[in-house]
Amino acid sequence: MITIAVDAVGGDHYPQNPVAGAIQAVQENPDITILLIGPEQVCREELSKQGYTGDRVQVFNAPDIITMDDAPAQAVKNKPQASIPVGLTLHARKQCDAFVSAGNTGALLAASAFILGRLQGVLRPTISTVYPTTKGFRLMVDVGANLEVKPEFLVQFAKMGEVYAREVMGVEEPRIGLLNVGEEEEKGTEIIRKAHELLKNHPRFVGNIEGRDILFGKADVYVCDGFTGNMLLKFGESIPAALQLLIQQAAQSSSLSADSIKPALGVLKQALAPFDYQAVGGVPFLGVNGVSLVGHGGSTPLAIKNMIFNAVKMVEHQVNDKIVSYLN
Amino acid sequence: MITIAVDAVGGDHYPQNPVAGAIQAVQENPDITILLIGPEQVCREELSKQGYTGDRVQVFNAPDIITMDDAPAQAVKNKPQASIPVGLTLHARKQCDAFVSAGNTGALLAASAFILGRLQGVLRPTISTVYPTTKGFRLMVDVGANLEVKPEFLVQFAKMGEVYAREVMGVEEPRIGLLNVGEEEEKGTEIIRKAHELLKNHPRFVGNIEGRDILFGKADVYVCDGFTGNMLLKFGESIPAALQLLIQQAAQSSSLSADSIKPALGVLKQALAPFDYQAVGGVPFLGVNGVSLVGHGGSTPLAIKNMIFNAVKMVEHQVNDKIVSYLN
Repeated sequence: MITIAVDAVGGDHYPQNPVAGAIQAVQENPDITILLIGPEQVCREELSKQGYTGDRVQVFNAPDIITMDDAPAQAVKNKPQASIPVGLTLHARKQCDAFVSAGNTGALLAASAFILGRLQGVLRPTISTVYPTTKGFRLMVDVGANLEVKPEFLVQFAKMGEVYAREVMGVEEPRIGLLNVGEEEEKGTEIIRKAHELLKNHPRFVGNIEGRDILFGKADVYVCDGFTGNMLLKFGESIPAALQLLIQQAAQSSSLSADSIKPALGVLKQALAPFDYQAVGGVPFLGVNGVSLVGHGGSTPLAIKNMIFNAVKMVEHQVNDKIVSYLN
Repeated sequence: MITIAVDAVGGDHYPQNPVAGAIQAVQENPDITILLIGPEQVCREELSKQGYTGDRVQVFNAPDIITMDDAPAQAVKNKPQASIPVGLTLHARKQCDAFVSAGNTGALLAASAFILGRLQGVLRPTISTVYPTTKGFRLMVDVGANLEVKPEFLVQFAKMGEVYAREVMGVEEPRIGLLNVGEEEEKGTEIIRKAHELLKNHPRFVGNIEGRDILFGKADVYVCDGFTGNMLLKFGESIPAALQLLIQQAAQSSSLSADSIKPALGVLKQALAPFDYQAVGGVPFLGVNGVSLVGHGGSTPLAIKNMIFNAVKMVEHQVNDKIVSYLN
């Protein structure tokens, strides 16, 4: 039996969505137990509201709440009784196998690194994201944990991302690409050129990936510093809303009625579904000594459930053991 | 009379498009003369093919051709008789007021900096781009000339961009935004935090701009290092083709016929028209001691004409004088 701790008060729609996702998860997978972490009363009321009467979703009291606006470092220090530090501490003590949350990403990152510590041989824990492309999701790493990097960090991001892509995303032979301003190996900053050199002999390194290639899935793992990754992640998130606006404006300027563009918006919505991060099942902090995943603040119950299942996969596939033996 | 030198053999469609754009420009604006720079025979044949018989498009012989694939630094050194070094040298000698080209950007940047030199007080010449947003075009600077920056460079990019946005793009009071991973001033790398501090008292500094805000036009001048800008520029260029593919895939997976999605693709194409860089009228190298603009390799005749007109505006509005007095 695998036990996943779920932050009951993380994200924009708590406790409803985390609780709903947890219930769906235990109903679909008979081999897991959920530990809901949050104010006990809040959790119990929501469980009963949602009509859950089983014993595979349990509650662990964490009276404080870290909000989306709390400054990460202070939040964890000032609210030791909040769901994030409480859940991660339980995990560090092996009382559960993973912790997942749709809460404050910065606080989660800080707390994961601090409470779980680093895996052996890991220079810097990192945060990745799944990135939508015309060929399906790809993994981008780092997307904000390490704004500045050394070549060796990038190499480790590549390798940790490779293990995650293979074990959790099911990519058999993940191709690794280095985000850069040109395809030629002499392009880029000194740090990137050095990283290119270090990655060159990797059997599945496909070289530099330019901005124009990202959306076409030219690699399975896109490696970059956290500044670049964060800009691209948030830019990608904004595409659906921006396009909708552009289409409405185009329709107006050509005097098309709102009705007449509805089919176009429908097809577009479907085409852009992968860009809907609220439906994405969370992404892991890689390199920490534990399994800690974070979901979008707007995570739907489905997203929470999928995040739980991704955590289960990380546990079952022993992702961290594989990372350690790969890096050392 | 303003004289603009035009690279007749730059871009993917030479000599047709540069020559066609030049002819259109003199026909629309009676106050300019064009100097076509390229192999004389090639230029004269194209002019006659396009039926131009006037004397306001003249030819200046430059027998060599720098291709899009030539390595920038070597190209200029090894082909001193190519249109780019010849045109820029004419400009440096004041035999024309500006040089525009849809050719090899790297070669143009290197040659512009080397042949024209820097404007007084400029730390680093920079290359900008116009970026499509839901509120129209914005200026992004730098997009590849300076992959690594110092805080002071970013401040100068902001100021040079501001002058260009006001004088050429017609934005009365350009708002300046600093691309960053968060809105709070303490976010980002040390270099960006320092730049934020230096820009803080600028009356039209609107603070940090996150990736998700770029497409919504939250500032008029987006300031960033050349690595970030280059990734975003090329990523933006790829959006229309990626979307078209995503829409086709969505249509297929829901068994919609090619015919039934045509209207959707039509509306989308119109909405994405601003992302068509082939129609954008070039962008300037800012900070060089001259007026040098570069256009997309795929520049249409319209794009070439608009690039010529942008150069004319830079000359008429004395953009460089204004930059010098602003920076010093």
